[in-house]
Order: sequence, then C-alpha cells, then structure tokens
Amino acid sequence: MQRAEYTARGPVPQDVIECVDRETPTPKAGEVLIEMLAAPINPSDVLTLTGQYGLLPPLPAIGGNEGIGRVAALGDGVTSVSVGQRVLLPVGAGTWASHLVAQAAGLIPLPPVGDPLQLAMMTVNPPTASLLLSEFIALAPGDWVIQNAANSGVGEYVIQLAKRRGFRTVNVVRRQDAIAPLQALGGDVVLVDGPDLATRVAEATGNAKIRLGFDCVGGSATDRIARSLAIGGTVVNYGALSGEACKIAPGSFVFRDVTLRGFWLAFWFRNATVEQQRTLFTDIATLVATGALAASVQETFPLSRIKDAVAAAASGGRRGKILLVP
Amino acid sequence: MQRAEYTARGPVPQDVIECVDRETPTPKAGEVLIEMLAAPINPSDVLTLTGQYGLLPPLPAIGGNEGIGRVAALGDGVTSVSVGQRVLLPVGAGTWASHLVAQAAGLIPLPPVGDPLQLAMMTVNPPTASLLLSEFIALAPGDWVIQNAANSGVGEYVIQLAKRRGFRTVNVVRRQDAIAPLQALGGDVVLVDGPDLATRVAEATGNAKIRLGFDCVGGSATDRIARSLAIGGTVVNYGALSGEACKIAPGSFVFRDVTLRGFWLAFWFRNATVEQQRTLFTDIATLVATGALAASVQETFPLSRIKDAVAAAASGGRRGKILLVP
Repeated sequence: MQRAEYTARGPVPQDVIECVDRETPTPKAGEVLIEMLAAPINPSDVLTLTGQYGLLPPLPAIGGNEGIGRVAALGDGVTSVSVGQRVLLPVGAGTWASHLVAQAAGLIPLPPVGDPLQLAMMTVNPPTASLLLSEFIALAPGDWVIQNAANSGVGEYVIQLAKRRGFRTVNVVRRQDAIAPLQALGGDVVLVDGPDLATRVAEATGNAKIRLGFDCVGGSATDRIARSLAIGGTVVNYGALSGEACKIAPGSFVFRDVTLRGFWLAFWFRNATVEQQRTLFTDIATLVATGALAASVQETFPLSRIKDAVAAAASGGRRGKILLVP
Repeated sequence: MQRAEYTARGPVPQDVIECVDRETPTPKAGEVLIEMLAAPINPSDVLTLTGQYGLLPPLPAIGGNEGIGRVAALGDGVTSVSVGQRVLLPVGAGTWASHLVAQAAGLIPLPPVGDPLQLAMMTVNPPTASLLLSEFIALAPGDWVIQNAANSGVGEYVIQLAKRRGFRTVNVVRRQDAIAPLQALGGDVVLVDGPDLATRVAEATGNAKIRLGFDCVGGSATDRIARSLAIGGTVVNYGALSGEACKIAPGSFVFRDVTLRGFWLAFWFRNATVEQQRTLFTDIATLVATGALAASVQETFPLSRIKDAVAAAASGGRRGKILLVP
C-alpha cells in the first residue's frame, strides 16, 4: 500500500509531504480495511502542512482529512458494513492513502449511486457552506448574501445551497474568466473584486440591503465585503487565502455597525448534537449523491504524484478542486 | 464673542480651525443665549476636522460637540431654564465658542454642584464607557474585561465604572509611566502593550477567561486584545488611535471563535428610547457631579489658542484631556 506522510511542517507544503510504501495492515476486532477511492486536498490540508491551521496532528502524520473508500476486509465482529460497500471516512482519518484501517463504528455507509469524486468532498466544504447560510443571520427567501472567492469549493456550494433556499448571491472573484461558470451555476450577480466593489454591488442589486457576507480571502478583501453590506450587517470570515490578517477600517465597521465573526467547522462539531450532525449530513449526502450539489474538479492525481497534487492545490488561479485517486 | 470655526477639512487639524470674532447673537423665541464655561476636544472632534469621522457637518462649521455653559439671556417664552443656571449642551452643538444660541428644549439643566470641567465631558465618553460594559456581554461581578489605550478618557471611565459594578479590568497602555496613575484609579492589572501581551495577561489574571475586550487603537493592537480573550470572546472596537484599520489574524479569530464588533455612540442614540437615554445620563450626571467619576485633565486653553489646543489634543502621549475654557 501507499500513503502520503510528513515528518515536519514547513512553508512549502509539497516539500514536506511524500508518498511512501507501507505494509498493508490487517484489521483487528471492530476494525475495517478500507481501499480508498478518492480524497480531496482542501485549503485546510495545505495549512496543516505549513503549520498555520488551528489543529495540528502530532508528527509524523498522514495527510488528508476526508474521503471515500470501499470496504476491503472486516475485522472480527464487524457487522455494520460489508465487503465491497462504499463508505465515507470520519473527518481527520488521514485519507491520502491507498488503504487504511478504521474503526467500523466511525464509518458512514454510502448508497451505491453517486460520483465518488463528489462524495469524497462531502464532509468538509458542503457543511461549511450550509452552516454559513444558517448559523449567523436568519435569512428569508429573496434575501441577498455576498461572498468572495466565490469560485472556491465552499463558494460553489454556497451558490447552489443559497439557490435551493431561495436566497440570492453576489459572488466576488478575482478573474474575468471565473464569471461565466458561476453564472451557469446559478450565481445571481458575479463581479470581479476591486476598490469600487461596494458601488458595483449596489448597482447590480438595486441597492439591496445585504445583511450577510462571507470572506475567506482576508487582507483588504474583508473590508470590501464589509463595505458592501447594509448597516448592521455581519461578515463571517472562514479562511485567509491571501495569507493576510483580515483588515477592517472604522469607516466600514464602527460607523456602519458591522460585526466580524469567524466560522470554523471544528467548533460546530464540538457543540452540535449528534442529531444536528446527522440531519445536516443526511441532507448533504442526498444532494451530493443525486448530483444536485457538486464542486468543480480541476484535476485528479495518483498518490505517487502527491507533491504535484499538493502544489496544484496550494496555487492560486485554480478552476476546481484537486483530488487524489489512489 | 469668539468661536472656533473651520471652512475646510484637512490632514493637519490645527491648520483648518481658527478663532474668529463674531457678533454676539440675540436669542429668538424659544431660544437661550449661553455663555460657555468649558468644552473638551475629543478624538472624534479631531477626526471631524480631518474628515475621517462617520458624521461630518456641512462647511463652514463650528468645532466642538459637547460642553457646559451658563444661561446668559432668555428668548421669549422660555421658562425651562433661568438666567445664571448651568446647563449641558446637546451633542453636536458647536461648543467651541464663548457664546452660542441654543433651543431651550435641548438644554439639560445641571445642579449647582460639581466641577465644570468634569461636567463638560459628560455626554460623550462616560456613556461610551458605560455602554461598552453593558451592551455586548452580560458580565457578572468578578468577571474580567481588557482594554487598550486604558489611559484615554474612555479608558479611565471604564476603570471606574467597572470597579463600581464589581468587574475587574486588565488595562493596556503604551508607556511605563502610565501604569501608576491607572493603578491608583482602581485598575486591577495594568500592562504595557507588546507582542507577548496575551501571555502576560494570562499570568497576571491567573488564566482568567476574559470574554470582553475593548480596542480603540486598531492595527495589530486589535489582534493582541483578541488573543488575550477566552475562546468565544468579543472584541469591541470604538476607535483607531493608531490611524490603522483593525487587523485580526485567523489564528486569534476563526480558530478561537472571537467576534469583532464596533461601537458608535451615535447608533446607540439613534436606537435608544428617551427613557433609556434619561436613565443613562441621570446615572452618569450623579456620578460626575459628586466626583465619583472623573477623567484626568492635562491642560485647558482659551479659545484664542484653539490651534495649540487642537494640536495638543491630536498628539499622542497625553496625560489627560484637553479642554477649552473661554
């Protein structure tokens, strides 16, 4: 078996990760051997390799936090899944591997339908998008939200989920050629970022009172989202793709009663009941399995090309997600 | 009569303001002629002269937003105040003047006791301090709050009001020589700002869970307050003495579930009921008139020295407020 491991963290993520050959393990009682089908490389995975993430596993570690696999062998006493069945791995399992052993109790059985690449991306970004839309402001159909990095994985899910719930979206991107795909996906307004963003947002929405904005860029981009909101609005930051701290000027903030909050899925998991988690994932699994919710895929890589895959995931200007397909 | 006027806004506030001689006006029906006793120069006044404040009066304009005066003459039909009585001017009255005419209905009659310099500063900073402590987090006696620029006017009021309500304060300043006066005022912990602020706050408070912080500095100082808070805490920004936008890094924010909010007294006035305003000002007036609530005064200036006074108010490193005493 192969897997992608790292023994140190460093500023260039592809330098610290490497593909190594290991003995295929045998599942013990209560465990299952999984043959991995697909695992994405998320921004949080890149930040874990560089040491900038909020939770860092002890070293040495295996990369990857989510993915889909097929049950290859059962340990003693396992009856919850059967050989050949597709399963979702629990978050944090170290999924960049051709095979891994997991506790049977933590596996989520999947229906046989559905694109494995899309199902592999189900546990991190779709819940983030769903909770961004539900946990901060009570939105009603017809309400607007605004987001930057709208062509990211989370951004695409926000567009699709907002549309299903009757909300309208202003989507901010950095490149002209990112506009058409997001319009095709259902984005109501798609604009290229710039100093006059708030003015163009007002024009494009007929001066709509936008009460909720999502920022995962940081730096002065946070401020431009804040300026585009109505007085009393809320900016939720959930990432910093620019590598910079969020900057909020008093003019767009104190004098406009704007609140800046952060969202981290790890906190939600810590506080949500099992029932809340099950409800959220059942909804998302249904949408993803039927193709109603999907993210763009740029490229898949074999595990042997882990360095190329991580470099591709860490670079800007992507047109979709990077996944490992062992 | 003399008053301090400006016909333009500009980056150097003392360059745009000047003291001019005008005819003393005669009060019309319902109006009162006020002889001004004292008026402070607040940071918001300086930002109004430089054009950076959230509300800017049309030009030309008279400086000053609060102050105390004595009734000098009554227009027809005025019975709510009498000649010789001390009154508080309503916010925004243009108080940097030896005399001014105001609507009798907007004047707040004052008792004959109390230091006029302290009463002159009653309408802007003490309500800000009081509302910072009450409007964001429900604090219980024994709870900690942290603030920077703790030796500002608002900072001093926060220390005194927090002590009266049984809260404990961590006070962050920029100079060693600012520590002793704030300890004497009742500050529980007083620390000089620096990169390791959060560590020293934890040591000094015995790892207290601080849920509320006040920032009026901006830039990376906002981040240091955020890092000093417990997970889930709230930073309230109410100014930017550094001239920089607030900077909040994901490490002290998303991964620690910290919320950043703004406070602007103008919004509170807009939304508060008359009863809420009356309750707040009655409490504050009682404390200020009896000397239980006071801010340090550095220097007073006559109106003829308005340029020196504004320059002094705009400079860092002050030891107290600057007031005009016509």
